[in-house]
Amino acid sequence: MATDPAQSERADDTYAEFESRIERISNVGNAAGILRWDQEVVMPEEGTPARAQQLSTLSSISHELLTADETGELLEELEDADLTDEQEAVVREVRRRYDRETSVPQELVEEISETTANAHPTWKEAKENDDFETFAPTLEKLVELKREYAHHVDPDADPYAVLFAEYEPYLDLETAERVLERLRDELVPLIEEIDASDADLETDAFSGQFDDDDQEALARDVLDSLGYDWSRGRLDTAPHPFSSGTQFDARVTTRFEEDDLLGSITSTIHEFGHANYTLGLPDDGYGTPLGESRDLSVHESQSRLWENHVGRSRPFWEHFLPIARERFPELEDVSPEEAYEAANQVYDDNLIRVEADELTYHLHIVIRFEIERELISGDLEVSDVPEVWNDKYEEYLGVRPETDAEGCLQDIHWSHGSFGYFPTYSLGSVLAAQLYAAAEEELGSEAPRASEEPSGDEPRGDLSEDVREGEFDELNGWLRENVHQHGKQYTTPELIERATGEAFTADYFLEYVDEKYGELYDLE
Amino acid sequence: MATDPAQSERADDTYAEFESRIERISNVGNAAGILRWDQEVVMPEEGTPARAQQLSTLSSISHELLTADETGELLEELEDADLTDEQEAVVREVRRRYDRETSVPQELVEEISETTANAHPTWKEAKENDDFETFAPTLEKLVELKREYAHHVDPDADPYAVLFAEYEPYLDLETAERVLERLRDELVPLIEEIDASDADLETDAFSGQFDDDDQEALARDVLDSLGYDWSRGRLDTAPHPFSSGTQFDARVTTRFEEDDLLGSITSTIHEFGHANYTLGLPDDGYGTPLGESRDLSVHESQSRLWENHVGRSRPFWEHFLPIARERFPELEDVSPEEAYEAANQVYDDNLIRVEADELTYHLHIVIRFEIERELISGDLEVSDVPEVWNDKYEEYLGVRPETDAEGCLQDIHWSHGSFGYFPTYSLGSVLAAQLYAAAEEELGSEAPRASEEPSGDEPRGDLSEDVREGEFDELNGWLRENVHQHGKQYTTPELIERATGEAFTADYFLEYVDEKYGELYDLE
Repeated sequence: MATDPAQSERADDTYAEFESRIERISNVGNAAGILRWDQEVVMPEEGTPARAQQLSTLSSISHELLTADETGELLEELEDADLTDEQEAVVREVRRRYDRETSVPQELVEEISETTANAHPTWKEAKENDDFETFAPTLEKLVELKREYAHHVDPDADPYAVLFAEYEPYLDLETAERVLERLRDELVPLIEEIDASDADLETDAFSGQFDDDDQEALARDVLDSLGYDWSRGRLDTAPHPFSSGTQFDARVTTRFEEDDLLGSITSTIHEFGHANYTLGLPDDGYGTPLGESRDLSVHESQSRLWENHVGRSRPFWEHFLPIARERFPELEDVSPEEAYEAANQVYDDNLIRVEADELTYHLHIVIRFEIERELISGDLEVSDVPEVWNDKYEEYLGVRPETDAEGCLQDIHWSHGSFGYFPTYSLGSVLAAQLYAAAEEELGSEAPRASEEPSGDEPRGDLSEDVREGEFDELNGWLRENVHQHGKQYTTPELIERATGEAFTADYFLEYVDEKYGELYDLE
Repeated sequence: MATDPAQSERADDTYAEFESRIERISNVGNAAGILRWDQEVVMPEEGTPARAQQLSTLSSISHELLTADETGELLEELEDADLTDEQEAVVREVRRRYDRETSVPQELVEEISETTANAHPTWKEAKENDDFETFAPTLEKLVELKREYAHHVDPDADPYAVLFAEYEPYLDLETAERVLERLRDELVPLIEEIDASDADLETDAFSGQFDDDDQEALARDVLDSLGYDWSRGRLDTAPHPFSSGTQFDARVTTRFEEDDLLGSITSTIHEFGHANYTLGLPDDGYGTPLGESRDLSVHESQSRLWENHVGRSRPFWEHFLPIARERFPELEDVSPEEAYEAANQVYDDNLIRVEADELTYHLHIVIRFEIERELISGDLEVSDVPEVWNDKYEEYLGVRPETDAEGCLQDIHWSHGSFGYFPTYSLGSVLAAQLYAAAEEELGSEAPRASEEPSGDEPRGDLSEDVREGEFDELNGWLRENVHQHGKQYTTPELIERATGEAFTADYFLEYVDEKYGELYDLE
């Protein structure tokens, strides 16, 4: 395209107008984020009716700003203009959202919103009473509405692919499906081998009763140790831990249970990973997609990288156990190796996703993925969900839920109308392994990966050694440079390719778990 | 007006459209309120740049919604329609805001907003360095801009009256001025008499060092004792205590200084008064002026009523001292009478408004009122403010500031561009006395007021006895019924008249202080 100065100046003006419009939308969204944090963390119990109205108002203002004719006109003009790469990325991201939001009639959006608002208490009650029947009609309604929603967005596409793209717009469903199938095909036999193993892991390292206040102090130690920037964050408790915010203010929540010290440590590390990604977004991108994190899988890759590859590693426990002993002298007799084993025990009889270990977790996800795909395609009736759910648990994990409360009613997601969300948890773990391998490649690792020839005498750092010494700056620097700082400039596949030199693959994850659990459980 | 059914149905539709529009504006404003609470109480220090953008976006969205042509058209239509009294009140309130906001050019609003944003750090530095000169040009600029602002709102009115009406729209400036002049004329000699008195008040009752955590526990006791609804509120700390929120969620902040236990108690009671007003607004009025509190003087009347008429009374200390002793056994030897005296000491040498007692406080306000009136009218040059300030302190209070830091630089208000705000503090106290007298009249008081003949043998309750027993339901019920529940349905003068049977008057305040301080200081 020719770069006639007058034309280019006009493009600058148009872009400036466009930018100020999307900054506005972004500020409304970030304000809503603070209101949601407040609601989960500090709001008095009776504040709900007013808060619901405030959030609904902000959400409809944001929708109106985005879908206004002016936005569409600006997009069209900018798509014909001579833009920088960054500007093009911003236009691409806004176009995506614009097309989605303008394609779905507002009445349908409102119907979904009302149905999910009522679905939540219905689901909660059904779970409490272990009564799937009372939730079934709502679930049917939600499936139907989301199918309709997908049809509006793209009448020619697989509706589940459309819904999945809501959470993970740039990884196509085929790729996701291939990865999940590989996880199923390789993890099922691995877990069976582990079940059959007579390795004697230390699993009582963290048993006992641990005071809440001391657990909180330790959670702060965890965050200090990982390098959390307290001037841009804070730690609170919430019934369902989460992290949220912007690069200027990314907060972590966690929770404490007296008998689960290990859980609060790993959950805090997990949320640190999310917040740390947000804090790595560029300050000057605030208000546009350049300053926003990529989608759910990439976010989850950051939390899982810290939780699993750092926090469930031997060197981490060599580093962190002495810190934990300061708060809890009863850990005096626990060795780093015992802590490592306790943090990596595979539970062969667990039915609950959120309590699952690093391996079986993915089978919980595969089951949900397979079921929701068929629900949306119409190949599975809602009334058959409990049976199919239980059969799959038996097939993949060797355990059968005795109630729906500990079966298909356990998760909140479907009551939110979220279909296509679950897979991003597993994809994030898989990506975490790929990224961590690339970081090790560049920063050095203690043991060269199995697939790699020893690299001889060239000097290099050592990531394991860093973790052992509680030095996380190098790793974080690598993540900042290769992932965080890019915001949404690249699509997810581009980002992965640039960071790791390869397309998205499950190879590294499977190599990592084979090596780690093979050694832990004395497998072949 | 005729009530033709078709016409009335059309009015209903119009009103519904209007209501949904103003509910939207109200929700945006309440969302901003949460963001401001968050900023003062929990936001990490580096969160400011993003927060400033979020607040500025919400404020401009709110402005655009209010000043949109549609709002004006709906107002006009409704002003010709047959409405209920409540609907008419809502239209009246929105019309006021609409006329103000549409009359001032947006560029001027933005200039004021930018100037005050920069004025704050300039003022802070000037105060720290005791250097009025560096703040003077900013103050001049602000005076000029606010004068210009007032001119846009009403070119024919006294500009100070226009600015005062920003904070107190329905009490006219003449009334306010008359009240303030009476305070000056009657309090100056009263305070001189107190200075000359040789009464020996116990003033060391609360001297000592008091642990922060115990002070916080006691602040919670205070709120419990007064009947704060924790299901719709919370207590936190903030550098400058405030309360904010809605009827569903009205939060209190306070602060603790080791050597000022009394200060944290009275400040907590004060903020309780504000929050308690907000909590008394009707739930079903949420989102419209019917569910919003009246303006600054009425709000301040609620905080002062609880702080002074309840919290600085003898019966309160008879009730509360035993509770305070539970937290602070060192108060064992303090008697309720000594606590009462300590809480009501008049400081004859204090230069700082926020540290002033219940009496001298109003002279601090009168001085500011007189100065800012003349600044806005142009009768006083900014460069002469320090001299005039010091002279007035000498004249009214018998003390002369030695620096501007403890003189005309002490308060933040002018750096916010707030001229006309100060008087509402005193008007609130005056109204508190009038309301409390009316409540005593209805609920009964231990000692009949001096102006009143003993009422003989008719049975009635006793407000003092209630306070002594920590029973605040009757008083609060009276406030709910006569003040809180009405939201903005009545104008301030109407509200006062309905609640007390009289127009706004300083009589009750002056009678109250004469009686109270006459007795405390053994005056004639």
